[in-house]
Amino acid sequence: MRTQVGIIGAGPAGLLLSHLLHLRGISSVVLEKRSRDHVERRVRAGVLEQGTVDTLVEAGVGERLRREGLPHHGIELRYGGAGHRIAFEKLVPGRSITVYGQQEVVKDLVAARLDAGGDVRFEVEDVAVHGLESEPYLTFGGERLDCDVIAGCDGFHGVSRPSIPEGVLSVFEREYPFAWLGILAKVAPSSDELIYTRTDRGFALHSMRSPTVSRFYLQVPADARVEDWPDERIWAELRARLESVPGFTLTTGEITEKGVTPMRAFVAEPMQYGRLYLAGDAAHIVPPTGAKGLNLAVADVRVLTEALAAYFERGSTELLDGYSEACLRRVWRAQHFSWWMTTLLHTFEDDDPYGRRLQLSYLDYVTSSEAAATTLAENYVGLP
Amino acid sequence: MRTQVGIIGAGPAGLLLSHLLHLRGISSVVLEKRSRDHVERRVRAGVLEQGTVDTLVEAGVGERLRREGLPHHGIELRYGGAGHRIAFEKLVPGRSITVYGQQEVVKDLVAARLDAGGDVRFEVEDVAVHGLESEPYLTFGGERLDCDVIAGCDGFHGVSRPSIPEGVLSVFEREYPFAWLGILAKVAPSSDELIYTRTDRGFALHSMRSPTVSRFYLQVPADARVEDWPDERIWAELRARLESVPGFTLTTGEITEKGVTPMRAFVAEPMQYGRLYLAGDAAHIVPPTGAKGLNLAVADVRVLTEALAAYFERGSTELLDGYSEACLRRVWRAQHFSWWMTTLLHTFEDDDPYGRRLQLSYLDYVTSSEAAATTLAENYVGLP
Repeated sequence: MRTQVGIIGAGPAGLLLSHLLHLRGISSVVLEKRSRDHVERRVRAGVLEQGTVDTLVEAGVGERLRREGLPHHGIELRYGGAGHRIAFEKLVPGRSITVYGQQEVVKDLVAARLDAGGDVRFEVEDVAVHGLESEPYLTFGGERLDCDVIAGCDGFHGVSRPSIPEGVLSVFEREYPFAWLGILAKVAPSSDELIYTRTDRGFALHSMRSPTVSRFYLQVPADARVEDWPDERIWAELRARLESVPGFTLTTGEITEKGVTPMRAFVAEPMQYGRLYLAGDAAHIVPPTGAKGLNLAVADVRVLTEALAAYFERGSTELLDGYSEACLRRVWRAQHFSWWMTTLLHTFEDDDPYGRRLQLSYLDYVTSSEAAATTLAENYVGLP
Repeated sequence: MRTQVGIIGAGPAGLLLSHLLHLRGISSVVLEKRSRDHVERRVRAGVLEQGTVDTLVEAGVGERLRREGLPHHGIELRYGGAGHRIAFEKLVPGRSITVYGQQEVVKDLVAARLDAGGDVRFEVEDVAVHGLESEPYLTFGGERLDCDVIAGCDGFHGVSRPSIPEGVLSVFEREYPFAWLGILAKVAPSSDELIYTRTDRGFALHSMRSPTVSRFYLQVPADARVEDWPDERIWAELRARLESVPGFTLTTGEITEKGVTPMRAFVAEPMQYGRLYLAGDAAHIVPPTGAKGLNLAVADVRVLTEALAAYFERGSTELLDGYSEACLRRVWRAQHFSWWMTTLLHTFEDDDPYGRRLQLSYLDYVTSSEAAATTLAENYVGLP
């Protein structure tokens, strides 16, 4: 079996790459070890940058996104007993974000690939990468897929990155001393906008997925387990943190999903080796505070698509050779912004009283200086 | 002996306060344990915010400052082999800083006080504070000075702050794991502007005092001693750090002054107790990176002057009661900015590779985003 681009992973990166390549007349096969049902239900990020929305719309997979996605023109920072709006329409005119679950993006992409007769294989076993220096091919479940190029879109725990020989990659990482407990609840959002809340009890985020489904996150200890967080405890803690502003009442209801997300940052450089190109979480992880993970994956795929098109259409390897460098500037900007949002809003047990006052002073500054608020806004909606 | 305001310390805070009170018809006596010669030669900060210059000019002590001070409309950030200008004239139009040594400000203020018949006593011994809760007075060298109010302008190591009963003050502090080695040299500046330089060898700052006198700082270990830094070593290290940009040559010459400045942050709250009001370093210390120490002292004195005028002119204690709160918002902004500049530009031995890349990514952002550059510029020239 032969294709031009062998893609490992049917998350948003792999599916979007396959779809964009298809639009350029380049063939690909997507290999995914999980089931279609699993990837379409996997709850992840939900904040799409303007550039991500534009990419999906231009690629013809934005129809439902446009209909069901919730455009947001600001977020609230809540701390010290008051809420402060970061107004995108004023600070970064014409740019906004759209709330639309990652699994909805995946559903739309799977449907688009299958509609177009794309080759997306779920539940394939034992995917392995070979011949990266010369004649690349993939093996899986007893089969062999020859290809010109392999795209590693199989996430942080995938097989792509570890298949690069030892010593090639430089790895940069950080573990945060806390995690996020995330829930989905069948309740209307308690506010029209996302609320990023800093309290002495820890961080909390009020978000949503639709007019009838809310999404919440709580900063919890790094070793927290879902079993330790019965529904009542979650609502009590969300109330204690989010109801820190007079007049705000949290709407509570049935919790349909719970999960603990570790807070970790990771970058592997370069994002390529021989005929293998990594995209998305396979190459880099950000803590979720800045909502950058999915958006970075889409940005990688945009760059990789252009590079592969130049290669297959004109035989030019220039863009492919520069792929990693072209991606990494954005990756590090997002790494920094995610670190910045995380340290601005979370409580750190080992922080001293001086550090806590610095944090509050920084929040006062971000919510009172137009320049400082703009640094948050322009990163949040996504730099060009 | 009796006066309205007993002022401890003849640094810029105490002298300016005495002068501003004099202009409002309020009497004061300044007690300083060092000699006049000592305080007039003590080399300290040299960057005056717009508001500091305005205060000195309006107070009639800005004549020489206007003539000899060097107005600056930008600074350079240098890292990664290139220099990047932060252009105040574009980012914060109409606002700038003026380079003028702190000891020159002190000379001008001493002269103004003595010209006006002010009572400034140098080399007084054993200053002590009494009766803060009711009838305040100062004792020194066997004498007694009764006053309505005491102003503690005697710096971090002075007697004022420790005279506040235990348990009253909340103290916030941080020690940085490095110091600054500062020198004065009889050489023309190697550039028209200040150059804040980040290298893997540590931070360096190119500054100046006049067209013929340069000022330099080097990040050194916290336990560095002047004896370990002969002139040749200093120039070699300055060259290694500052000549990191092609075409830049450091002008070297005779070093006339050397000193090691610890990098420390400190805030005591509130800045007042009974009839005692603290101003400047007596209440707060910042690391010198943001050039905020002298400017904070002047800002405190402006607020205290208005409060004392309201008290002595109208018997109103409202502003005096709110003195600390009025000052502390600016103090914490400056604390944060100083921490920000310090962490942005210094190397931290315990930092991991991820942290170093974050720092470089932040520098890339500050030098490429107008909003981010504006946050630096507006803090550097001084927020209103």
